[in-house]
Amino acid sequence: MRNLTLLTDLYQLTMANSYYNNNQHEQIAVFDLFYRGVGNSYALVCGLEQVIEYIENFKFSKSDIDYLDSLNLFDKNFLNYLGKMQFTGSIKAAKEGTVLFPNEPFLIVKAPLIQAQIIETALLCIINHQTLIATKAMKIKYNSNNKKVLEFGLRRAQGPDAGIYGARAAIIGGCDLTSNVYAGKEFNIPLTGTHSHSYVMSFDTELEAFQSYAKKYPNNCTLLVDTYDTLKSGVPNAIVVFKDLVKRGYKPVGIRLDSGDLAYLSKKAREMLDSAGLHDVKIAASSDLDENILRSLESQGSRIDVYGIGTKLITSADTPSLGGVYKLAGIGDDKKYVAKMKLSDTSEKMTNPCYKKIVRIMDKKTKKAIADLICLHDEKFEMNELEIFDPIYTWKRMKIKNFYVKELLEDIYVDGKLVFEIPSINEIKRHANSSKNELWEEYIRDVNPSNYKVDLSSKLYEIKKEIIKDNSLKIELEY
Amino acid sequence: MRNLTLLTDLYQLTMANSYYNNNQHEQIAVFDLFYRGVGNSYALVCGLEQVIEYIENFKFSKSDIDYLDSLNLFDKNFLNYLGKMQFTGSIKAAKEGTVLFPNEPFLIVKAPLIQAQIIETALLCIINHQTLIATKAMKIKYNSNNKKVLEFGLRRAQGPDAGIYGARAAIIGGCDLTSNVYAGKEFNIPLTGTHSHSYVMSFDTELEAFQSYAKKYPNNCTLLVDTYDTLKSGVPNAIVVFKDLVKRGYKPVGIRLDSGDLAYLSKKAREMLDSAGLHDVKIAASSDLDENILRSLESQGSRIDVYGIGTKLITSADTPSLGGVYKLAGIGDDKKYVAKMKLSDTSEKMTNPCYKKIVRIMDKKTKKAIADLICLHDEKFEMNELEIFDPIYTWKRMKIKNFYVKELLEDIYVDGKLVFEIPSINEIKRHANSSKNELWEEYIRDVNPSNYKVDLSSKLYEIKKEIIKDNSLKIELEY
Repeated sequence: MRNLTLLTDLYQLTMANSYYNNNQHEQIAVFDLFYRGVGNSYALVCGLEQVIEYIENFKFSKSDIDYLDSLNLFDKNFLNYLGKMQFTGSIKAAKEGTVLFPNEPFLIVKAPLIQAQIIETALLCIINHQTLIATKAMKIKYNSNNKKVLEFGLRRAQGPDAGIYGARAAIIGGCDLTSNVYAGKEFNIPLTGTHSHSYVMSFDTELEAFQSYAKKYPNNCTLLVDTYDTLKSGVPNAIVVFKDLVKRGYKPVGIRLDSGDLAYLSKKAREMLDSAGLHDVKIAASSDLDENILRSLESQGSRIDVYGIGTKLITSADTPSLGGVYKLAGIGDDKKYVAKMKLSDTSEKMTNPCYKKIVRIMDKKTKKAIADLICLHDEKFEMNELEIFDPIYTWKRMKIKNFYVKELLEDIYVDGKLVFEIPSINEIKRHANSSKNELWEEYIRDVNPSNYKVDLSSKLYEIKKEIIKDNSLKIELEY
Repeated sequence: MRNLTLLTDLYQLTMANSYYNNNQHEQIAVFDLFYRGVGNSYALVCGLEQVIEYIENFKFSKSDIDYLDSLNLFDKNFLNYLGKMQFTGSIKAAKEGTVLFPNEPFLIVKAPLIQAQIIETALLCIINHQTLIATKAMKIKYNSNNKKVLEFGLRRAQGPDAGIYGARAAIIGGCDLTSNVYAGKEFNIPLTGTHSHSYVMSFDTELEAFQSYAKKYPNNCTLLVDTYDTLKSGVPNAIVVFKDLVKRGYKPVGIRLDSGDLAYLSKKAREMLDSAGLHDVKIAASSDLDENILRSLESQGSRIDVYGIGTKLITSADTPSLGGVYKLAGIGDDKKYVAKMKLSDTSEKMTNPCYKKIVRIMDKKTKKAIADLICLHDEKFEMNELEIFDPIYTWKRMKIKNFYVKELLEDIYVDGKLVFEIPSINEIKRHANSSKNELWEEYIRDVNPSNYKVDLSSKLYEIKKEIIKDNSLKIELEY
């Protein structure tokens, strides 16, 4: 297990030294990790398991401290303190595979200021990345018409971790298999893979290459048919090999198209396979695919059964970062805290103060989500009727009856102790699926989705309003 | 040191088993790693050091083999062979920090087919990523008018490695400092960092926050001035603190703008600082910057001295992947090989056959590069006069006199033995700078750059032409 304690921005440590010198470092701070955006851009939360790994290994080594010392920026007694420091705070977080919306905390840290600050960068790095890829995978799967989706972007990933944790996130988000062997072993996720163009080229003829591959994998034989000419050479050669396999009692799996007009080629290849009686042979396709191309291919009636997605998933090519942020919501001691928020000229950029929780308001009849409410961490609700309102356009109000609420954040760490049992990747995948299914499709579709309501409770809204009115106000609350 | 031997696509291993069964696995194969594109999109090659690390650690562990066995895809004797396998091949590569152009091999592997194939994915992953970021950094530095450029994208990087190796590549490409402490220690690169908005918010007033930071870092004091209001609060408070520092004999460093209209704010802040006699205090700016915004800020006469670049550098946001590929160029034994190339309907997608080298033809007088020539690995040239021609538009010809040639690829591994001495990051950075400087600015500028000539030698061109004419032709060459 790598120790990533130094995986932080230098300013976290220069601030920490200043806090230490002012004896502020053990004040208890509350930080929220969330992303900004509009209510129709959902995120499939991912990365908590690696956050836990990071926290479990959080300890500056002797050589880390020596290195920091060599920078001539830090006091000896501060470095001494750092060398002994472990995480003693509390973390609440949404389970991996929960669909959340802008401004909802994925994760809330309540910890000594110095610790909460130093872990910021790694938490953001891990969660921003995996959430980005899991969300992209969910969009891709959504547009595949429930076809099988394979992840094979490793060679274009932004370094080994991006490939490894990207594969994990892709599987959680909806991919069925990955080509990444390292990830397969590490996370126990199913693998896929056949052969490449160079394999075909290393033989004198395409037919020999196919025969050779079929000889080793008679029951697992998918052939890449575009090395020379898909319809004139690849598919006919594959048919020769598949017919022979069938004759010998095997079940050939499929062909893979990797270039050209995939809609057209898949239709033609389907005809050729069907004419040869190979109705069960599947057609896989790859070549710079993403959710938009999948939607287009599906709408053209193409005959693709399996999609292979590389670069555009593993890098989330159209938006290669999730803008997750980590903002101070309160500061005090272990009994009470002063509410804090970031003011801004743009109301969307203002943060929400206080130690909070999120509840999802569910319709009793449909079991679908109606709205989410961000509220004080210990807030109770009238369960007969609830009035919610938009926190910016406050005249937008809605009365809700026949509902129940789900809390979206769970205790992960309590006073430095891990209290959360890490689920298997299959459990996370199932949770992702049911979290998606509890939302009406209107909120999930890519094109022109409806705005999902994420409102503030009246109590939280009032506190926020007061601070906006007078920023010097010290509103003190209890945990 | 992590063992990343499993960092490969499953198909490399299924192919390997098939090669093994056919007794083809120890044929000697030649693969080129390069990217496609047009001659005006350069790349600053980066990542070789991590490729070497990967190769040095290349060994399937017992638990890797057990895992592969559990997949029920591989033969026992094949797995036995894998378990004992080490890299015994040869690698030639361009030194990190060399500027190369499309179709030029960054790296050539000549190794037993099975090894060359299994290492493909990791080589591409490492080199694609670091080259992408180094190139982006070079573009950003180029547009900064030689101002100081800081990398601080870790929190938005695609996982820890993307942050760590991205920082390394950014420094090689032209950034002066990084905020990434882990990378600082790992690669001995200089760090930068001050404080955040939350630091300011954790105090009752901005002034107290600034005073507290200045108390700890009187000689290293850069203050973030946009937490409340840049011109009305941040800059005036910073001036109070800086004047006090000056009075006490210290030299305040700078302010940082992180939102708003950076051109306008930098001009106003400059005026305010100058009026206070703080002419040496620098202005740093950050906020979603990239090379295009830098060019715009510079053209507006903004008064920014230091640029901080986050997300758009560490993810190379506008093109988040380099399309590096790895293509078979020959296959045979350790004495001779049959030239191989990928044919395609698109002439740009055809690969170049044979075991090759690249030379850069340099003008004796100006010491600037005239063109590159991809040629056979042992080719010699007439040094008095050389005629080069475009490999696609062959009527485009040019006669060159008064030149000398530089070989761009060096031996890294010879028969499994590392023969290359890994340079320090400062040497790599210097090499990057001189490699850039040997190219006319016309090839380097972002907007409408000229096409740099990358031609084939006549000998290589003739071989390629023959194979295109008759793909079944077996042209045999010697190493």
